[in-house]
Amino acid sequence: MTDMIPAVSPVIPVILSGGSGTRLWPVSRESFPKQFWPLLSDRSMIEETARRALGPGFAPPIVVCNQDHRFVVAEQLRHAGIDGGRILLEPAGRNSAPAVAAAALLAAETDPHAVLWMMAADAAISDLPALHRLLAAAVLAARAGRIVTFGMKPTAPETGFGYIEVGAPLAEFPGVHDLTRFVEKPDAATAATLVASGRHLWNSGMFVFTAATMIAELDRHAPDVLAAVRLAMAQRSADLDFIRLAPGPFAACPSISLDYAVAERTSHAAVVPADLGWSDVGSWGALWDLGAKDGQGNVAVGDVLLEGATDCYVRSDGIVTAVVGLENAVVVVTEDAVLAMHRDRAQDVKKVVDRLRAAGRHEAVAHNRSYRPWGFFETLIAGERFRVQRVVVQPGQKLSLQKHYHRAEHWTVVEGIAVATRDGATILVRENESIDLPPGCLHRVENPGRIPLTFIEVQTGSYLGADDVVRVEDSYGRVG
Amino acid sequence: MTDMIPAVSPVIPVILSGGSGTRLWPVSRESFPKQFWPLLSDRSMIEETARRALGPGFAPPIVVCNQDHRFVVAEQLRHAGIDGGRILLEPAGRNSAPAVAAAALLAAETDPHAVLWMMAADAAISDLPALHRLLAAAVLAARAGRIVTFGMKPTAPETGFGYIEVGAPLAEFPGVHDLTRFVEKPDAATAATLVASGRHLWNSGMFVFTAATMIAELDRHAPDVLAAVRLAMAQRSADLDFIRLAPGPFAACPSISLDYAVAERTSHAAVVPADLGWSDVGSWGALWDLGAKDGQGNVAVGDVLLEGATDCYVRSDGIVTAVVGLENAVVVVTEDAVLAMHRDRAQDVKKVVDRLRAAGRHEAVAHNRSYRPWGFFETLIAGERFRVQRVVVQPGQKLSLQKHYHRAEHWTVVEGIAVATRDGATILVRENESIDLPPGCLHRVENPGRIPLTFIEVQTGSYLGADDVVRVEDSYGRVG
Repeated sequence: MTDMIPAVSPVIPVILSGGSGTRLWPVSRESFPKQFWPLLSDRSMIEETARRALGPGFAPPIVVCNQDHRFVVAEQLRHAGIDGGRILLEPAGRNSAPAVAAAALLAAETDPHAVLWMMAADAAISDLPALHRLLAAAVLAARAGRIVTFGMKPTAPETGFGYIEVGAPLAEFPGVHDLTRFVEKPDAATAATLVASGRHLWNSGMFVFTAATMIAELDRHAPDVLAAVRLAMAQRSADLDFIRLAPGPFAACPSISLDYAVAERTSHAAVVPADLGWSDVGSWGALWDLGAKDGQGNVAVGDVLLEGATDCYVRSDGIVTAVVGLENAVVVVTEDAVLAMHRDRAQDVKKVVDRLRAAGRHEAVAHNRSYRPWGFFETLIAGERFRVQRVVVQPGQKLSLQKHYHRAEHWTVVEGIAVATRDGATILVRENESIDLPPGCLHRVENPGRIPLTFIEVQTGSYLGADDVVRVEDSYGRVG
Repeated sequence: MTDMIPAVSPVIPVILSGGSGTRLWPVSRESFPKQFWPLLSDRSMIEETARRALGPGFAPPIVVCNQDHRFVVAEQLRHAGIDGGRILLEPAGRNSAPAVAAAALLAAETDPHAVLWMMAADAAISDLPALHRLLAAAVLAARAGRIVTFGMKPTAPETGFGYIEVGAPLAEFPGVHDLTRFVEKPDAATAATLVASGRHLWNSGMFVFTAATMIAELDRHAPDVLAAVRLAMAQRSADLDFIRLAPGPFAACPSISLDYAVAERTSHAAVVPADLGWSDVGSWGALWDLGAKDGQGNVAVGDVLLEGATDCYVRSDGIVTAVVGLENAVVVVTEDAVLAMHRDRAQDVKKVVDRLRAAGRHEAVAHNRSYRPWGFFETLIAGERFRVQRVVVQPGQKLSLQKHYHRAEHWTVVEGIAVATRDGATILVRENESIDLPPGCLHRVENPGRIPLTFIEVQTGSYLGADDVVRVEDSYGRVG
C-alpha cells in the first residue's frame, strides 16, 4: 500500500530506540533491551519496526539510540535489509523531545520540508495495510503544517497510557481529525469513562510532521530543548557510520517527552483514529495477549513442556522448562535468570530488577552474552582465577590489537579459521588447533574466512577484570 | 543416646539406596537420585541416614545400591565419616526383599545373631534422641526373634503410605507392641478413618531383626527370593571395595518388597509406635512442609528473590530465580531444567519426566555433571563438532589410560597441577599451561597434588560420542 503515499518526496522514518524495557526482564535488560529481541516473530522488534517503512515511499530511516547500542542497531538494520540509514547516537538518555529535535535538524539540513514519521522501536502493529493507508492520510496533513498523531482504538481501559480526545474531522484531510486534548495516564475509573465515551483513543506516541514544523514548534514551546540540541548537532562527530551528538550540550538539554514539550502545547495537533492491532508490548502479560495460544490458553515459546497449565505465558531461551498445573502464570527462563510470576503482577518485575541492581547483580542490567562490532562473546564458566569464554567473530571482522598484564589466554578454534597475531608473528589457527598467549604479549585475532569463527578462550591469572586490556589499535574506534 | 543400646554386639545398619526419586525432578534423576542430594541440610540424605547410626552401638553399615551408583555411595560414606562400610551392588533393581536378603546373608556369615537395622537412604527424621531410644527397645525384641517395624504417628490422612494397626503392648519389651495387620495404601476416606482411629500408624519401611530371623522367615514365606539371592551371593565377586552380586541369579530373583514377602506374612511381626518427625521426602510439597519458612510461608533455597510470593517452595541450584506474586507454587531450577508447578500437583512431576524420557531427553534421567571414581566432569557448551568440559580430578586420583579415534582434546589447567601422559611421555602441566592431545594419541591424566585439579577440556572432531574411548588401563576396574 506504500504506493498510496504521495510521491512528492519519500517519508523519513524516525525510529526512537530509547526504552530499557525493564518490565520484560529477564529477557530485556539495559544493555540489550526489548527492541533488540525477537519477541513476537523471528525478527527483533526494531527490525519489525524498520521493515514497516520499507519501500518506494520511504527514505532510509534515522534511528536515535543510546551510543552503547550502536553496533547492535547497525547489525539489526543490516539484518532487516535496511541500507543507508543514519544512526544518531545519544550520549545520555533525554527522553523523546531532544531525540526528535536531533532527527528533525538532521533531516532539515537536506530538506526542511521532509516529512518525518516518528515511532518507537518496540511497539507491535498487526495490520500493516491499514497502517500504510492511515499514514498516507497523515502525511498529507503533515505537509500542510500539522503535527499528526495516531490515536489507537482502545481495547481495554488501560491505565498505563495517556489518552487523546478526538475532535471534528478535518474536511480537507480525509481520515484526519482535530485533536481536542491530551489526557494524562488516568486512574482505573477515569480510564473506564474515557473508553466508554467512544471519543478517546490511546496515545501511541507515533507522530507524523515535517522537519520545519517540528523545529518551529520546538522553538515556540521548548526553545531550551531546541537550543541545546542545535549545539549538540553543530558539534557532532562522525564515528564510523554513526553520528555522535556532542556529549556536553546534549547532557545540558532538559529531559522531556515530545508529548509534554510540543504535542500538548501546539495549536497544530491533529489525530488519525486508528485500529491497527497496536501494542506497546509493555509487559509479559502483553506478550501473552499477543501470542498464539494452545487449547488451554497457553503461549509457549522455546523448550517448554506444559502439563495441566492454563492461560500461562512460558518462554525459555535456554534450558527445558516444565510448567505443571499453574494458572495465569508467566515463566520466563534465560541463560542466567528465571522469572516466575502471576500474570497480573507485571508491574512488580521492576521491583525485582531494582532489588537486583541494588545488590550489584549484573543480571539486573546485562546479559551473559556481550555484543561487539566484530561479533560476540559469552562466559561459559568462571572461577576465582579462571574464566572460560566462547568467542564468535563474524567473517571479515577482527578484534583490537591488545595485551593483558595479569592473564594468560589459551584459544582453541572449534569452528572456522583464525589469523592470530602474537608479538608480531602471524599464525594461522585452524579447527582443532590452539594457541597460547602469555601475559604481556601483544595479540589480535581476525576471521579471514567466509563463515563465523568460534574459539574457546580459557583465561587464567590472578586478576581477570575487564579493565586489564590495553588496546593498541582497533578497527571500530575503541582504542585507548 | 546410643549408650542405651545393649552392648551385646553392635547393630548393623542396612541402608537401602534403591529409589529414583522421580517426583523430585529436576534435582533427583535416575543417574543421581534424591538420596545423594543435600535437600534438607548441607549433607546428602544418605549421609544424614548413615550418620544416624554412628557411634559405639553401631557396626559399619551395609549399603545396598544400584551398581551404577557405587562410586557416589563410597564417596558420600567417606564424606559422612563412615569407615569400613560394605557396599553390596545390585546388577538390577529387585525391590527391597532381595536387597535385605543379601544383607542378612552377608551379616550371617560373620554372626547369624547380628541385629540388622534396615532403613531407606532417603527419609528424614528430625528427633534423633527419640529414634535411638526406640531403636534400643526394638533391638531387644529383635534379639528375641521379632521382626520389629517402626510405625510412625500420622500427621495427616496420607494416601501415599501403607498403614499398620497396633496391637497390645508386649509386656516383656517395653515400647514394643504386637502388630495386628498391615493396611495397603488407602483411599482418602479410608485414610481419614484410619488416622481417626488412633490405632493406625504409617508404615515407614524401617525394620529391626536378626540375620537369622530374617533368613528363616524368608525361607518360610519367600523361598524363591532367598534361593536366588543365596546363589547371587555365592557367586558374588569383589570389585575394589565393592561386593557385586552375581547378575544372572540376581536377575532371576522375583522383584518384591519386604512388606509383601515377609512382614505381612510372618507371625513374628512387632511394631514400635514412633513420633520422630519422619518424612519420606516424597515430593517437593514434603520439602516445603519440612523447610524453614519466612513470614509469608515461603521456603527459599539458593539464589532466590521473592516479591509478594506466599507459601511457595523455591529452590535454585544455579541461576538467579525471582518469584513474583505466586501462591502455593513450587519453582525448582537446576543447571539444565526448570520446574514451575502448583504445590498440589506433586504427583504430576512423574508425567513430566515420562514425557521427557519418551522424547529421548537426557534431562529425564541424567545430570549434566557426571560423577566418576576420580572426580567429575560437566559439559559447559556443545556444538556440532566441539564440546567444552570442565574436568575436576580429586587429589591422588587418575583417569584411565585411553585414546580416541575421532577427536582431538586440548586441556588447559586452571586450578591445581596435572601429570599428563602422552604417548609414553610424562608432562607436568601447571596452572595457566595447556597440552594438546591429537586423535589417536594414548593419554592419561593424574592429580599428584593436595588440592583438586581443574582443567578445561576442549574436544573437537567430527564424532564426539562417549563411545569413542579405548580404555587401556584403569585404576577403578573399568578397562575395555
